[in-house]
Amino acid sequence: MPTKSPVIIDLKFDPEEVAAALKGAFADREVINLLHPANRGRDLSGIDYAVVWKPGADLFARAPDLKVVFSGGAGVDHVLKLPGLPDVPLVRFVDGTLTTRMSEWVALQCLLHLRQHRAYAAQREKRVWRELAQPEAKEITVGIMGLGVLGQDAAAKLKTLGFRVVGWSRSRKEVEGVETFDADGLDAFLAKTDFLVGLLPLTPETTGIYNTGLFTRLSRKGPFGAPVFINAGRGGSQVEADIVASLNDGTLHAVSLDVFEQEPLPLESPLWDMDRAFITPHAAAASDVKALVRHVERQIARVERGELLEFLVDRTAGY
Amino acid sequence: MPTKSPVIIDLKFDPEEVAAALKGAFADREVINLLHPANRGRDLSGIDYAVVWKPGADLFARAPDLKVVFSGGAGVDHVLKLPGLPDVPLVRFVDGTLTTRMSEWVALQCLLHLRQHRAYAAQREKRVWRELAQPEAKEITVGIMGLGVLGQDAAAKLKTLGFRVVGWSRSRKEVEGVETFDADGLDAFLAKTDFLVGLLPLTPETTGIYNTGLFTRLSRKGPFGAPVFINAGRGGSQVEADIVASLNDGTLHAVSLDVFEQEPLPLESPLWDMDRAFITPHAAAASDVKALVRHVERQIARVERGELLEFLVDRTAGY
Ligand SMILES: NC(=O)c1ccc[n+]([C@@H]2O[C@H](COP(=O)([O-])OP(=O)(O)OC[C@H]3O[C@@H](n4cnc5c(N)ncnc54)[C@H](OP(=O)(O)O)[C@@H]3O)[C@@H](O)[C@H]2O)c1
Ligand SMILES: NC(=O)c1ccc[n+]([C@@H]2O[C@H](COP(=O)([O-])OP(=O)(O)OC[C@H]3O[C@@H](n4cnc5c(N)ncnc54)[C@H](OP(=O)(O)O)[C@@H]3O)[C@@H](O)[C@H]2O)c1
Repeated sequence: MPTKSPVIIDLKFDPEEVAAALKGAFADREVINLLHPANRGRDLSGIDYAVVWKPGADLFARAPDLKVVFSGGAGVDHVLKLPGLPDVPLVRFVDGTLTTRMSEWVALQCLLHLRQHRAYAAQREKRVWRELAQPEAKEITVGIMGLGVLGQDAAAKLKTLGFRVVGWSRSRKEVEGVETFDADGLDAFLAKTDFLVGLLPLTPETTGIYNTGLFTRLSRKGPFGAPVFINAGRGGSQVEADIVASLNDGTLHAVSLDVFEQEPLPLESPLWDMDRAFITPHAAAASDVKALVRHVERQIARVERGELLEFLVDRTAGY
Repeated sequence: MPTKSPVIIDLKFDPEEVAAALKGAFADREVINLLHPANRGRDLSGIDYAVVWKPGADLFARAPDLKVVFSGGAGVDHVLKLPGLPDVPLVRFVDGTLTTRMSEWVALQCLLHLRQHRAYAAQREKRVWRELAQPEAKEITVGIMGLGVLGQDAAAKLKTLGFRVVGWSRSRKEVEGVETFDADGLDAFLAKTDFLVGLLPLTPETTGIYNTGLFTRLSRKGPFGAPVFINAGRGGSQVEADIVASLNDGTLHAVSLDVFEQEPLPLESPLWDMDRAFITPHAAAASDVKALVRHVERQIARVERGELLEFLVDRTAGY
């Protein structure tokens, strides 16, 4: 039996978390963790697999024989821009733990806005006991941009909580109980949407898509009079100056942002201080390294059994 | 055809909301809204039905012929204490809108604690961008005390969001995917519970049940090291001095309270200021008056067709 190709790990995550996740992993092959100083000068030629997130600038030069590259994150916009990325199959990270975490975050944000958490917090600071008029989830239409793995899971969970849900994607999807639109249906989709949830990948087409022009096409007929914008896709899809202006002039009622044009969010961003913005530090759905390792193991096993890889990135589409 | 009995409405809710809900309601019978000054001296004898929430002290003396009393709220602890309450069927308020609103609130509170909303808010005030170690919903066992209409709906929705769910009630219930316990199983139930959700009615048996003795029997093995207490049943079931002490000494990690021993929560309560307590002003699931009217219409129609009333209160059990 020929020895199995080692797997290169070049993940700029927390080193201890990576080390812990690799313990006992890839039982039948060598693991070359480039976070280890011992591997600094290591010859990487002849190796088939690399798992990467913000890899060293010389990785692809040092490892010229890669047959598959695995992205350490669900979004591959960073990976696609890596200089020297070889023209081999690129697999993105899809895993149940990442998906359910994202849906937790999306459900939390929709409920925070629905249940007027900010208004209650402000009342509380003044020790004011006053019940607010409270719409029910079914009075809110959540519109999800991006009906991929994450968007479809979020849609199902928001429906269970009682929200009406509509969805938009490049090609129209069939999702139980959800009215769906394709790229051409954007205007009709936006006109129905009270809470807009962004779960799009960052591509040339989705760069800057969340801007004033789009916000003004959202429904203003919902119970809060102006729409809410929630984004956990990628910061590059949003125009933050437009978000700030739209919050200030009432085009938007409130926002929840997990992603930003520049991360970490610069100290001088007005978003830090705006009380109608909930913000989290790109933490909606962390890449659990253990889950990533399981996913890569599964995919390598497929390749070596002669099966097709799953979750392949379409480089023309950019996701 | 004999004329149908009028229905007395004595609801100390927002008068405009009551008036709006009564518009067009009970099409086939007279509605006597006691919020109307015109009805002040009105003879109420011979009338079969009354819908009450904090009714006038003389209501039952003025209406001696009631055949059914409808509670304006889901909880009937207040109604059962009304002097002169006649010994006729008492129907509590059960409606889909109330149930789904309660589950929205419960899901929101569980997600706020799971996703460390308070810690992220504190970081944000200092403009700190830092991702926290994040357990997933499936690492948390939510224990629901009270598996009635509200508890069962909350259980199903929390399961969909990924939480593990266990439940406790007087008689053991069968709930899909939920490990359930009866009254005698309280210790085993508590030992499994990381987030305790209170959805019990207030009865002599449940008065003061949420106290230090109970909190110390909850699991401390969950990812946050100490349990979370969430109550939307009745404030009389909780001992607030114990909650404050348990937050201060680490017996409890955090709490969410919608109900209080005294409402409005007194200005001097330390709970107003405790940042590990989320509080809302008995707003988890408002009695939507329109829904209440529909529910009463449905029940009166049943009686008059000779069918049994639903949602009857068991006066011995107290709920
Ligand atoms: N904040 C975080 O912590 C975090 C964590 C994980 C992922 N993410 C982000 O979430 C994104 C989505 O993840 P996923 O796994 O759901 O991706 P996915 O399965 O590839 O789905 C992407 C969806 O977006 C749609 N789409 C792409 N380009 C479009 C366009 N130009 N117009 C209309 N629709 C378009 C796709 O349409 P089709 O269905 O027609 O292909 C698809 O429905 C990732 O790319 C990543 O950037 C963020
Ligand atoms: N905060 C708010 O806005 C709000 C809104 C609506 C309702 N509520 C409160 O929520 C409560 C629950 O409503 P619901 O409609 O779910 O009531 P329900 O259908 O009557 O259910 C009550 C549950 O509590 C259990 N229970 C009662 N006494 C018990 C005891 N001594 N030991 C163990 N279990 C006991 C019952 O057990 P069995 O199944 O064995 O009978 C049942 O499972 C209401 O009574 C009300 O006080 C609050």
